[in-house]
Amino acid sequence: MSDYDVIVLGAGPGGYLAAERLGHAGKKVCLIEKEYLGGTCLNVGCIPTKSLLNSAKQYEHALHAEQFGVTASGVEVDWAKVQAWKAQVVKTLVGGVGAAEKKAKVEVIMGEGKLLGPGKVEVNGEVKSADHIIIATGSTPAMPPIPGTKDNPKVLDSTGLLAIDHIPGKLAVIGGGVIGVEFASLFAALGTEVTVVEMLPEILPFMDDEMAAKLRKGTKGVTFNLGCQVKAVEDGTLVFADAKGQEQRLEADVILMAVGRRPLVEGWGAKEAGLEYTPKGIAADDTMRTNLPNVWAVGDVTGKSLLAHAAYRMAEIAVSHILDTEKAAKTGQILRTNTIPWAVYSMPEAAGVGLTEAQALAQGYEIAKATVPLLLSGRFIAENGMKAPGAVKLIADKATGVVLGITVLGPYAPEMIWGAATALELELTVEDLRQVVFPHPTVSEGIREAAWAVKL
Amino acid sequence: MSDYDVIVLGAGPGGYLAAERLGHAGKKVCLIEKEYLGGTCLNVGCIPTKSLLNSAKQYEHALHAEQFGVTASGVEVDWAKVQAWKAQVVKTLVGGVGAAEKKAKVEVIMGEGKLLGPGKVEVNGEVKSADHIIIATGSTPAMPPIPGTKDNPKVLDSTGLLAIDHIPGKLAVIGGGVIGVEFASLFAALGTEVTVVEMLPEILPFMDDEMAAKLRKGTKGVTFNLGCQVKAVEDGTLVFADAKGQEQRLEADVILMAVGRRPLVEGWGAKEAGLEYTPKGIAADDTMRTNLPNVWAVGDVTGKSLLAHAAYRMAEIAVSHILDTEKAAKTGQILRTNTIPWAVYSMPEAAGVGLTEAQALAQGYEIAKATVPLLLSGRFIAENGMKAPGAVKLIADKATGVVLGITVLGPYAPEMIWGAATALELELTVEDLRQVVFPHPTVSEGIREAAWAVKL
Repeated sequence: MSDYDVIVLGAGPGGYLAAERLGHAGKKVCLIEKEYLGGTCLNVGCIPTKSLLNSAKQYEHALHAEQFGVTASGVEVDWAKVQAWKAQVVKTLVGGVGAAEKKAKVEVIMGEGKLLGPGKVEVNGEVKSADHIIIATGSTPAMPPIPGTKDNPKVLDSTGLLAIDHIPGKLAVIGGGVIGVEFASLFAALGTEVTVVEMLPEILPFMDDEMAAKLRKGTKGVTFNLGCQVKAVEDGTLVFADAKGQEQRLEADVILMAVGRRPLVEGWGAKEAGLEYTPKGIAADDTMRTNLPNVWAVGDVTGKSLLAHAAYRMAEIAVSHILDTEKAAKTGQILRTNTIPWAVYSMPEAAGVGLTEAQALAQGYEIAKATVPLLLSGRFIAENGMKAPGAVKLIADKATGVVLGITVLGPYAPEMIWGAATALELELTVEDLRQVVFPHPTVSEGIREAAWAVKL
Repeated sequence: MSDYDVIVLGAGPGGYLAAERLGHAGKKVCLIEKEYLGGTCLNVGCIPTKSLLNSAKQYEHALHAEQFGVTASGVEVDWAKVQAWKAQVVKTLVGGVGAAEKKAKVEVIMGEGKLLGPGKVEVNGEVKSADHIIIATGSTPAMPPIPGTKDNPKVLDSTGLLAIDHIPGKLAVIGGGVIGVEFASLFAALGTEVTVVEMLPEILPFMDDEMAAKLRKGTKGVTFNLGCQVKAVEDGTLVFADAKGQEQRLEADVILMAVGRRPLVEGWGAKEAGLEYTPKGIAADDTMRTNLPNVWAVGDVTGKSLLAHAAYRMAEIAVSHILDTEKAAKTGQILRTNTIPWAVYSMPEAAGVGLTEAQALAQGYEIAKATVPLLLSGRFIAENGMKAPGAVKLIADKATGVVLGITVLGPYAPEMIWGAATALELELTVEDLRQVVFPHPTVSEGIREAAWAVKL
């Protein structure tokens, strides 16, 4: 008999949710974590950035409320307090994960787990056995070998910048992905001179180009350099070739390396145990099964999606198959990556789900599309004025009318996008969406306007 | 031949949208309005209240951002500026309606229209004919004959209070519906001493009792008196019997009469033309047809729902049948009142769709339910702290798992509820909803947590 029904390796969103759900279902579960409960997301990812961004947004609002009849003198940011609030939020949520695991009777072991093979894990010098093993080791910031970055105290990854003890005067950001853009927005709002250097011709490569350009142009106080190749860092100077191939030198107090994250596929026995993987992730099918029997992989480590909510869903899928494979098959428990939404908490915010225009065309669709400004929304105008950036773009399959993708740029975008994920999950047509009643006056009505603006 | 294809009586949300859509479809349309383009919603309803509420929320945020590391001294409200901003927002949106009608080649006539019978309307002394007539005359604040209220300058309806030139010191609100609660929240945030007197045992009667109680308890600075009977107003004193039948006297500078709105079924010829109606509204079927041939009714005047977005939907339905009845029938163009969401922009905000627990039980369902706190959401905590009110309640049919109702109390509720309307429109089950991926970290994840918390 095994020591446990299930051992989970890694206590990030995928791991902690899997353990909790299995525990409540009566399974004997062991959750192994080498660093911190809650993983990257809770400790050095989504949650601390959203806490800092909230402070920056509050500051921004307080500074600019005069238009709405609210005046304040001496608006100031106390960075130590901002950081203290972030720490309190993280501590509360990490405590919540610990309490949830305890309630689910999950045994939590702090230590570096090592997969020995199907059913066997070593941790803190002891071998533990289980009927099933779930791999949820996550990801880590990618640090490309740019000359002058290694051991340079002015070069930080996202974890380092989250912990910074002052607001930098000048910040250079290498990489215009979600991490780079969120930090750029955050510090620009607090008065930092921010420059983003991005290799591709547009920021946020997963986002529809037209909408990403709108976000870029709507971001105040950030200089974006697109199509650039970073060559080296010399102390605090970023050396890069611009879009025309000209060498540029950018001085900064802090340089953020934000070129993405890579799945943590090594260092915990994957190779030795015979698990199939590439640098892009552990190979797992759409039920989260790996090539080894009863070894499952969920979350960032699969490389299928590096988003916390995708990890949750993968965990639920693995759990459903572990608990009752027949029922899981009957209720369609498989991963559908095309209906996983994304959100960026920059200023302005953005969110989307499904295909971009370019992706839809590349897949051979003849498309119908519409982009509508949020200035159509009374609430948007009342809360943001007539010049704020905001738009909704909708892409549909011209032949069937099925909605293929929705992107929202503007306030509340992350909170309204789940409806679009639902619409895509159910393969709604534009006509179906037109019949849904949206409350008035909301910014979300922009999605409805886009559905009505599409010409099929 | 008729003068027009369609005459629309009333330029509120139902009327202006119908006219615009018909115009774009190539119809010759006349839109008749006696007072103001945009109707109650744009001029003295949803939009101006949301503008004032936005200012109040900005003030509230500026006052209480210290927890997040943002300090501001001398935070003040300049009520004249608040009102000026409101006026500018209204003016912009009314201008937008005018421009939209012009673009759709709709002829707008300012004047009191009178229905003479099928195909005939009188306005400004002239008789106009049309193949179809759409009645969209809206509603007006109900003013019950409480002694001492008539011609009392201290007693205002919502239109009067929207235009007030100062922040009152003491405000008494008769009626704890959406209008009463929004104004109570608004002025309480600005420092007014606010008391709400409500006849029923709970505020917001359309809202799930449990959730309405949470909203009431979470509203700062407002005293709620439930189960009370207003007897009279004597100058600025509200006389009412409390829940125990004891007479109470409440002094106020301003008394808001907010006991609801009534459909405007009279004064424009309904009776003389032979249109069927009661004080509760013009009789219309679920395709918006009245008893008279080619006479349609949409919006508040039908009494089916007194919400602007319901008026939009009714307008779309009438338009679809006028343009192509066969296609309208095929695409299911009928009014489904059970999937119309509602939103309250109080502090905290709330929104919902479908049945309350009491309604589901009254309809004979055996229900499964869950109420989860928003403190489960990392974003909620990061932005609001650990003590802010917030919850999601989900009601499902125990037999089938179909979701019957969702109520959200907390920030962003109005922006996230369209997803729930979509879920109800498609008759999703709890299991379907569990499989939808919500972006993390959002407050909307509370809906997902509720779906997972329901025990079927």
